[in-house]
Amino acid sequence: MPKDDTIRAASITRAEIEQIVRSVVTAQLAMPELRVDASARHLHLCQEDLDTLFGKGHELHVHRPLYQEGNYAAQETVTIIGPRSRLISNLRVLGPLRKKTQVELAFTDAISLGLDLPIRISGDTAGTPGALLMGPRGVVELKEGVIRAAIHVHMNPAEASHFGVRQGDMMKLRIGGAAAVTFERVAVRIDPTSRLNVHMDTDEANACGLHLTKDIELLK
Amino acid sequence: MPKDDTIRAASITRAEIEQIVRSVVTAQLAMPELRVDASARHLHLCQEDLDTLFGKGHELHVHRPLYQEGNYAAQETVTIIGPRSRLISNLRVLGPLRKKTQVELAFTDAISLGLDLPIRISGDTAGTPGALLMGPRGVVELKEGVIRAAIHVHMNPAEASHFGVRQGDMMKLRIGGAAAVTFERVAVRIDPTSRLNVHMDTDEANACGLHLTKDIELLK
Repeated sequence: MPKDDTIRAASITRAEIEQIVRSVVTAQLAMPELRVDASARHLHLCQEDLDTLFGKGHELHVHRPLYQEGNYAAQETVTIIGPRSRLISNLRVLGPLRKKTQVELAFTDAISLGLDLPIRISGDTAGTPGALLMGPRGVVELKEGVIRAAIHVHMNPAEASHFGVRQGDMMKLRIGGAAAVTFERVAVRIDPTSRLNVHMDTDEANACGLHLTKDIELLK
Repeated sequence: MPKDDTIRAASITRAEIEQIVRSVVTAQLAMPELRVDASARHLHLCQEDLDTLFGKGHELHVHRPLYQEGNYAAQETVTIIGPRSRLISNLRVLGPLRKKTQVELAFTDAISLGLDLPIRISGDTAGTPGALLMGPRGVVELKEGVIRAAIHVHMNPAEASHFGVRQGDMMKLRIGGAAAVTFERVAVRIDPTSRLNVHMDTDEANACGLHLTKDIELLK
């Protein structure tokens, strides 16, 4: 029996073929390229602290747009001073403004400042250490808000449904290569405006040699 | 039937009981506590470079013994200068002397110096970057030998046999806690004088929050 007849014998209808094509295309659309970014230390400012540090009425200037829609690295930087009078200068402000000021440092930075930081999801800053922030126009004595941000993945609801995960779930991220590492607690953050994107800090990126490999996998 | 009789009915001989006790005790002896250390940036010196940096006939002074028998952090430190004239001072010398000078930095250090480092097992320095080393008595222009040391585990032959691994094998190290991470390429280094001990660098220790957890497991 020639091959042609075999196919006909399987009785695949036009509707069935369309369905198969549709499901394959849908699966591909639901699986955008996985982008992993290393976030260098930075801070987010509230309006009041922006006013204090840079002067009343000051507005942030875009230095570079970030991958997440509407977010940007600002031209503005501050100096952060820790409890042992050690400091890190050129700490970059990320825009837009937020309701609460929050500083995100790697443990390496925290150690050099003399701060004992908790690992927190962005926004969860209750009971975290503070620090002194110094801008060109003033100083803010931040009572709390300095964290080591937990590694996390931004995604939209369609991507979450593709991976079968919900807000706050933990996923695994495997980075291959010479320093292969699996991060086991990657917090899922779902928002309709988000683009699929893992954020780790510089300690994590340096530990796994993120710049050395493209062998990256996000797993439920 | 009383429990006593059940045991007798199983006909365990004295020799068999001794064998069971022996195997349990042996297994416990072969499984010492797993110690994981974060190695801060440091260097090993050869005799010639020690002479150049600290003066002919200089001998290293012990600052602090290390966990591996005979190894120590020396009182001596040098300054390392990278290609962009950036420097790191107080880079500690580890003793005893070696045949070749070797500098071990975390990627965070390498980035701050402007060096693009390969990940290497200690001693494997062919084709690696060099740097300028500055001591109190002189300067060494190191042609090669600056590496990011691969995470590795020291063990003696009995421990290797307990884990069922051989020289150069790769093991996995799982660190639990809030920043749980599995390091997938932990190089096995077997020596009769070694004590069971994982060495990671500060980027790796900071990435996994090593100081925050005791939930640690070494797996084949």
